[in-house]
Amino acid sequence: MSRSCLAVILAAGDSTRMKSSMSKVLHPIAGRPMIAHVMEAVAGAEVGSAALVVGRDAEAVAKAGAVGGVDVETFLQTERLGTGHAVLAAREAIQRGYDDILIGYGDVPLIASATLIAAREKLKEGADIVVIGFHTNDPTGYGRLLVAGGELVAIREEKDASDEERRVGWCNSGLMAIDGRKALALLDKIGNGNARGEYYLTDIVEIARADGGKVAVVDAPEREVAGCNNRAELAALEKSWQERRRHELMISGVSMVAPETVFLSYDTEIGQDALIEPNVVFGPGVRVDGGAIIHAFSHIEGAHISAGAMVGPFARLRPGADLGVGSKVGNFCEVKNGRIGEGAKVNHLTYIGDAVVGARSNIGAGAITCNYDGVNKHDTNIGEDAFIGSNSSLVAPVSVGRGAYIASGSVITEDVPADALALGRARQVVKPERARLIRERALAMKASRKAQK
Amino acid sequence: MSRSCLAVILAAGDSTRMKSSMSKVLHPIAGRPMIAHVMEAVAGAEVGSAALVVGRDAEAVAKAGAVGGVDVETFLQTERLGTGHAVLAAREAIQRGYDDILIGYGDVPLIASATLIAAREKLKEGADIVVIGFHTNDPTGYGRLLVAGGELVAIREEKDASDEERRVGWCNSGLMAIDGRKALALLDKIGNGNARGEYYLTDIVEIARADGGKVAVVDAPEREVAGCNNRAELAALEKSWQERRRHELMISGVSMVAPETVFLSYDTEIGQDALIEPNVVFGPGVRVDGGAIIHAFSHIEGAHISAGAMVGPFARLRPGADLGVGSKVGNFCEVKNGRIGEGAKVNHLTYIGDAVVGARSNIGAGAITCNYDGVNKHDTNIGEDAFIGSNSSLVAPVSVGRGAYIASGSVITEDVPADALALGRARQVVKPERARLIRERALAMKASRKAQK
Amino acid sequence: MSRSCLAVILAAGDSTRMKSSMSKVLHPIAGRPMIAHVMEAVAGAEVGSAALVVGRDAEAVAKAGAVGGVDVETFLQTERLGTGHAVLAAREAIQRGYDDILIGYGDVPLIASATLIAAREKLKEGADIVVIGFHTNDPTGYGRLLVAGGELVAIREEKDASDEERRVGWCNSGLMAIDGRKALALLDKIGNGNARGEYYLTDIVEIARADGGKVAVVDAPEREVAGCNNRAELAALEKSWQERRRHELMISGVSMVAPETVFLSYDTEIGQDALIEPNVVFGPGVRVDGGAIIHAFSHIEGAHISAGAMVGPFARLRPGADLGVGSKVGNFCEVKNGRIGEGAKVNHLTYIGDAVVGARSNIGAGAITCNYDGVNKHDTNIGEDAFIGSNSSLVAPVSVGRGAYIASGSVITEDVPADALALGRARQVVKPERARLIRERALAMKASRKAQK
Repeated sequence: MSRSCLAVILAAGDSTRMKSSMSKVLHPIAGRPMIAHVMEAVAGAEVGSAALVVGRDAEAVAKAGAVGGVDVETFLQTERLGTGHAVLAAREAIQRGYDDILIGYGDVPLIASATLIAAREKLKEGADIVVIGFHTNDPTGYGRLLVAGGELVAIREEKDASDEERRVGWCNSGLMAIDGRKALALLDKIGNGNARGEYYLTDIVEIARADGGKVAVVDAPEREVAGCNNRAELAALEKSWQERRRHELMISGVSMVAPETVFLSYDTEIGQDALIEPNVVFGPGVRVDGGAIIHAFSHIEGAHISAGAMVGPFARLRPGADLGVGSKVGNFCEVKNGRIGEGAKVNHLTYIGDAVVGARSNIGAGAITCNYDGVNKHDTNIGEDAFIGSNSSLVAPVSVGRGAYIASGSVITEDVPADALALGRARQVVKPERARLIRERALAMKASRKAQK
Repeated sequence: MSRSCLAVILAAGDSTRMKSSMSKVLHPIAGRPMIAHVMEAVAGAEVGSAALVVGRDAEAVAKAGAVGGVDVETFLQTERLGTGHAVLAAREAIQRGYDDILIGYGDVPLIASATLIAAREKLKEGADIVVIGFHTNDPTGYGRLLVAGGELVAIREEKDASDEERRVGWCNSGLMAIDGRKALALLDKIGNGNARGEYYLTDIVEIARADGGKVAVVDAPEREVAGCNNRAELAALEKSWQERRRHELMISGVSMVAPETVFLSYDTEIGQDALIEPNVVFGPGVRVDGGAIIHAFSHIEGAHISAGAMVGPFARLRPGADLGVGSKVGNFCEVKNGRIGEGAKVNHLTYIGDAVVGARSNIGAGAITCNYDGVNKHDTNIGEDAFIGSNSSLVAPVSVGRGAYIASGSVITEDVPADALALGRARQVVKPERARLIRERALAMKASRKAQK
Repeated sequence: MSRSCLAVILAAGDSTRMKSSMSKVLHPIAGRPMIAHVMEAVAGAEVGSAALVVGRDAEAVAKAGAVGGVDVETFLQTERLGTGHAVLAAREAIQRGYDDILIGYGDVPLIASATLIAAREKLKEGADIVVIGFHTNDPTGYGRLLVAGGELVAIREEKDASDEERRVGWCNSGLMAIDGRKALALLDKIGNGNARGEYYLTDIVEIARADGGKVAVVDAPEREVAGCNNRAELAALEKSWQERRRHELMISGVSMVAPETVFLSYDTEIGQDALIEPNVVFGPGVRVDGGAIIHAFSHIEGAHISAGAMVGPFARLRPGADLGVGSKVGNFCEVKNGRIGEGAKVNHLTYIGDAVVGARSNIGAGAITCNYDGVNKHDTNIGEDAFIGSNSSLVAPVSVGRGAYIASGSVITEDVPADALALGRARQVVKPERARLIRERALAMKASRKAQK
């Protein structure tokens, strides 16, 4: 699209009903702030500049909104005098002169680029105003789109609507596109001569028409224009986002046994023929290659999982986990900043942190890389085909050579050469009949404790 | 409310369809028996006394129903001759004389105090009988409320209803309020001259009207009057309870990414700006302070979590877990009867039982407090700023002083002074090329095993 | 049923939209391939023989379909010329002569035996063709069942239907029963004189009627005849299967707090008065006896859980786990091929593999059976009333006698006699003030690392 465009995003909305210590538009959906979702859609509509009209947390909002390469400025909204007034907080940007102006909302995060593009196309075709509308079974509370002679003639607010008008299920989303050359003049004509003394952006429709302007409508699916006023609505938006993305992934060839129990992040990538079992949570930064299997109850963030790898059940992959082809990370295992080589197995009750595990190596149950000394983190290197016995502790920095064998229960503090056996444990001692004595003493203590009560 | 009130709760319902070895009303919703939910609502309606009409498990039902300070008596229902007859099992209590009589059901547990209060208000205004009704899209099976001249004239049972009457969506919940001074006389007039030879409580409406009495209706939301006849309906009630409570918490400022995967108990308290990720189960007795974060896959009961603390993913907090401000209990960690000091970290594969962890201390991966000797439990005390190495075992009773350092893999059986280093592990021994030998032997054994098959 | 029957199952359906590397009918529902579900229903309808018309993965499909004792042959479908043509791929079987022919689909897996039996009954009563129909609120895309004079006269495809016909909500599922003596003649009359040049099985209705044959309809619930064209539909079928099975179990006396979070396999058995908490996944081969408790976040496959046993939360039971009466397997514990004796406790962070744990024994937190030496698996035997200390390692093959006591943190490599105490750990050494030194060194390293950046 060769036309220039400014998106004005109203993001100063009162967060009172969120009962939150941070700005509403910073609350996340799919692991990133609502405002970032809006800006992603804006970027996808080939918009070059955005003016964020903010109330509080201006810096954080601007930072969160800096996605997709759009130039972002913030404008502080100091008074709450209606949407028409709020848009004009960005007067400085608007008057710079753009072909198209888009009006969006920081708390209407599921809007799609395609809808914004469709609105811009209408401007290109000559409309002065493009209202983004939607159809709904329950229009209560929304402004109704009133049509006469095939044209949108007004947006009627609920409270001003006749009974017949209230039955109209075609509603105003609040989002809008305006011819950038006329925008300022039209916006400045919005008055506040109404009961609440506010400047309503929707009045711009009648103002434009009175000037002989052309008003068009572009329809969005209802789910795209749902807003967020409290945390129950935030959860509903999250659910809507998740449902759409799960469906996309399934259609693309990802198997999900129970999609409603799989939680994705905005950037989760999963390849064809991967299998995702019930109850899997993906934090940001995850890439699952085709054919991998993620078993139930896995929690994954910042990780890469190669083809044929198996994760879980009950696995935790943290940032920097990189699982090689055909490798396994099993139950009650945590991997953080760790590369697991091809075909290596980390199957039970293990912590792998700041470590490299060589191809085909086997990490025994309960083995732990002791990467932290209370102050610093240190690295562990395990070669290929090594065997790390159960319940052993590898005190980093330390290396275990290729093909080496660590005996169960050993504490390894020094490097182990290739093919060597390393032990660090005491010899077993057996004291016959002593267990009986221990039990007798313990029972006596129990009796004495009881007597003291 | 200065009027005296007796609640008669029918709790002897046949549990056959529950296929259960215990009384139906003892089955739990949100972690406590149905009968306790009913009694909580009764208590909230400022009712002083309750008569529980029970069939089996009388003692357990009475105990479970003893909530909210209501005086509870039980009356045994020995025959099943209809609801009208069942209420009269509590004749001794009714004839004691109360201003108001409420009739409730042990298996209609979601009734709200507000509805009961509204019914009592109608009595106060002069009604003799107050029927608690509800509106539904699917009235099949319910008695319909029939109105004439603006008054309730009868409750028509499904089987006796005309086609037109069956289309009525206003139904009888079975719950009722009766003028306490007239109750016994009215109840005694209920006859059993019907096909099944039973005494129907609903007949009281026509009896009262025949006496010139006044019958009023109070409406309850349909969800409040849903009953429980089998375990599928029990699950449906649980779901209904959970949905309402999750919504309340979200509206009060608690973030839930996927509320449908969060399971609360009747007494779960969560402060504003706390974040609850997907798949969290709260057992009874949990208090989460504002700003705490509960990551996915956490299981919490009997615990207190302070502001800024982080729990999970995959954490288990059991009764007596008390997490200080900014502390962390991470993956595959269990805390039972343990105080975790401010800023202390228990991050991986750890069991903390009967212990105190001092502020800012770090518990390494796989470290375990050995609190049980097979007979008795013992305490562990860890001072502030201590470092407990990975895979170490603290054999209780034992103390680790402030600033002390336990080397990885150590078994600690004696107290460690402040700022001391304690070790309890063997020195590492390396046997070059020995891993090769171990492998060769193991492979030979494998071959021999195969040969033997 | 004394009549012979052949089921022709079309299982060559194009899997393109599944985007899968394996045949669509091999994709699992409730842990077994769709084709196995179909064949289970076929077997339940007392069908002796089945002809599977397959496209690819013929061997795997035949193997997966071999359930319930039905004789299975496969026939390769080499061209895609419509359902009528596909059925004739099994001409060799059909012409062998059966009383009844059933036509089913490998991707319509939820069909019930009862529906197939009802269709066969109609054949027995004299019908030549029995169409399996269903009623739906959204018939879009389905062939409509057109009735005149009380008889089915045609199946009208969507594209050929009039507006009035499109409003018909009675549809063709595609499943059918045909008089086996007439089947081949009727099938051979199906032509391909239509727009797509395909042979439509549905034409058989009009062909039979033209011959004076009798066509009957048997209705199936809509859920039984839902098909699978992509992985979203696969997930929908899985959900439908799960909902039905959960409901059956609840009605039979199993408590589920949140049934929508419990995932069953095709063969999961759960006894009366068992309690299943939220978020439990049952893989194949699980039997839970009455009165057992499965806590939240448990993952169970190939296991048997006796009465009064408790599992989880966060427990993993793998094939061969067998939990005795009143035993416990708790959080972050894994049992594989392990028998847990009556009243034994495996409560925290433990791996039990290839082991027997005697009655009433207690396995401490973090204890591990080291069953794998990198090549072979070995057994561990723990006697009754033994106490295995926390963080100990039992290096298999090894036996611990009845009543023996293993000290915490020990590595046990040799058999321990009954009632003996076994230790394998170093004596504790304390170095006063040394922790301070360690901290100072670590802080110095941190400073130096920073300086290097």
